[in-house]
Amino acid sequence: MGYALPRMRYAMIMAGGAGTRLWPMSRAQAPKQLLPLFAAEHAARPRSLLELAADRVQGLVPPAHRFICTAEAYRPAVRAALPELTDAQILGEPMGRDTLNAVGLTAAVLAKRDPAAVFAVFTSDHVIEPVSVFGDRVALGFQLVEADPRRLVTFSIKPTYPATQFGYIERGAPLSDPATGRASALASRVARYVEKPNLSRAQAYVQSGQFGWSSGMFVWSAATVLGCIQRFKPEAHAGLLTIQAAWDTPDQARVLGEVYPTLPKTSIDYAVMEPASQLPPTDPLASVCSVLMDLRWLDVGSWPSYAETLPPDQADNRLGSALTPRTGLLVGSKGCVAVSSSPGHTVALLGCTDLIVVHTPDATLVMPRDQADRLKDLHSTLDPSLR
Amino acid sequence: MGYALPRMRYAMIMAGGAGTRLWPMSRAQAPKQLLPLFAAEHAARPRSLLELAADRVQGLVPPAHRFICTAEAYRPAVRAALPELTDAQILGEPMGRDTLNAVGLTAAVLAKRDPAAVFAVFTSDHVIEPVSVFGDRVALGFQLVEADPRRLVTFSIKPTYPATQFGYIERGAPLSDPATGRASALASRVARYVEKPNLSRAQAYVQSGQFGWSSGMFVWSAATVLGCIQRFKPEAHAGLLTIQAAWDTPDQARVLGEVYPTLPKTSIDYAVMEPASQLPPTDPLASVCSVLMDLRWLDVGSWPSYAETLPPDQADNRLGSALTPRTGLLVGSKGCVAVSSSPGHTVALLGCTDLIVVHTPDATLVMPRDQADRLKDLHSTLDPSLR
Repeated sequence: MGYALPRMRYAMIMAGGAGTRLWPMSRAQAPKQLLPLFAAEHAARPRSLLELAADRVQGLVPPAHRFICTAEAYRPAVRAALPELTDAQILGEPMGRDTLNAVGLTAAVLAKRDPAAVFAVFTSDHVIEPVSVFGDRVALGFQLVEADPRRLVTFSIKPTYPATQFGYIERGAPLSDPATGRASALASRVARYVEKPNLSRAQAYVQSGQFGWSSGMFVWSAATVLGCIQRFKPEAHAGLLTIQAAWDTPDQARVLGEVYPTLPKTSIDYAVMEPASQLPPTDPLASVCSVLMDLRWLDVGSWPSYAETLPPDQADNRLGSALTPRTGLLVGSKGCVAVSSSPGHTVALLGCTDLIVVHTPDATLVMPRDQADRLKDLHSTLDPSLR
Repeated sequence: MGYALPRMRYAMIMAGGAGTRLWPMSRAQAPKQLLPLFAAEHAARPRSLLELAADRVQGLVPPAHRFICTAEAYRPAVRAALPELTDAQILGEPMGRDTLNAVGLTAAVLAKRDPAAVFAVFTSDHVIEPVSVFGDRVALGFQLVEADPRRLVTFSIKPTYPATQFGYIERGAPLSDPATGRASALASRVARYVEKPNLSRAQAYVQSGQFGWSSGMFVWSAATVLGCIQRFKPEAHAGLLTIQAAWDTPDQARVLGEVYPTLPKTSIDYAVMEPASQLPPTDPLASVCSVLMDLRWLDVGSWPSYAETLPPDQADNRLGSALTPRTGLLVGSKGCVAVSSSPGHTVALLGCTDLIVVHTPDATLVMPRDQADRLKDLHSTLDPSLR
């Protein structure tokens, strides 16, 4: 980029999930976002969702302004995956308290260091392409907040089908583009949040052109989001202030460990964004806006959804993680997904149709694609050493 | 057993095959008969077909009278599998020359050491149960040869279905039982050998009650079988005599390496048993007889046939090699076969039907049961390092 990055821009990537639906690769100590799922042409080994997410942030905020919010237990794995980060850039949760508190903790920590901090919140559950469009939309979000720090900017994904597994965001009045001053085609007020709809409602939303999927990604000022938590979830705010007071002191770990588990476990959408979206446009507290992301946004929550991120061969077979055309042999097979985390291990499928095969050093899974939803049943029967 | 074993009884187990249809467990350096396929309750690791074959010979001949005829390249693996054998008990073929020469070499070696040697020939391709019946039938074969050293005794398997993949042996006149002197229900002259029949002929053979499957197992005197080779395949006999002269001298390895590859590659059935079965009963050279084996005789030449040797669960699933109910997880699956040669590796099949899954440390195979015949096509495309 030809200009210096504004110094008050920060980014936080949420990386706290587990992901039993990616077993046997995902384990208690190897959560979804750290799995080596994505082969990259010039990388020695496949890369993880977290690495992809960290890559996407490059060029958007200065290196020292990147944070990962994750389970404290994953700290060593996160540091190994992202060795350029310092320990202070990893916010380790003693236990998961949902997105309200991951956001709140980050806001409290940043506001103590930099009262003017504006930060983006990203997930590490998705493959997002093209990255250049993503970067442009995030930059627009930052500009919107810098133009009016009351703004809570949520990113909505342009829907490609009537999905029923996502919340929807209805667009309201367009905002003016901070660069041109004209009405933006991408940025708008948020008219309302909608919970996961049924199929017919989802179809109506998609046809209207006025709705986007709620992405779980945001940009906002740390002060504004803290103010909203104070208004809408005061008990969380009090705890966050206690943690903030102890941060960067010798008491940091002790206070975090004592207070964080007591915070109310709820999502930022439910606790803050939905009530804030009901505020009148001129309310001095906050103004909820959205920026449309018109790009490929692929959830990687299960083996079938992971498969959608992989290039198909002519028979609609896909090879994942460390498998290459040399080690993934699909003979007379169609619609199959073969994955191995062991470089050099050969996986051969002969005459198979619509199967998913996942090999790891200590466990191998085979299931028809349409059985993937039952993986949680299998998972619950596993020996604890394999979970 | 309550009596000493007759000192001139010997046994030779043929263990020269490769077995591409058991890939990925079978490899160039890990042939079928050495694979750890069979879990045994009191064994630390699964046992191989060769170990099962060696077990079956226990109590039939003295330990020092057991021989394995195998590829010289497999000698280290055979010694590791059967550490009680000496190097001299392993007859290492420089290259495979079919069963005529495996038998001829053994006859030549034994006749040089013990002109009265009577030896049994066993295969290592089958699971045979119950072992006690097998032992009784072999003992009867030895007794028949000891009563008349002209006899070439072939073991025929009582057919359980009209198989088209085996040759058949038609029973002729009953022989008298050497123990009782009465007509034996099991031992008879051989009326004729029949090549692999079509289905309708096979059905007629099975219904007649006069036919058995040709097992590839025999008992005979070393001198008699050498005499038959001399009569019916003189060029092989000449080479075998050259090898015999050099055996147990410093020239043994050199002469074997020079002569053995020049021997005509053919089967003992075709070269000796079929023409010998045409001799009149009183011919001084030989008399072809059969002993009926009324037992379970399961070929282990492919994954589906291996599966037949494994106990099914209630949904007709089977676990093979090192898999146990703790490591082989078959959830909502039926008719599946899961095999792993790695103790501790978990193989989980979720909602699968009629699949075969075979895991090894460096390669995993998945195929529907009805695709097993195509495994040779896959095998031919493999990187040589995996064959």
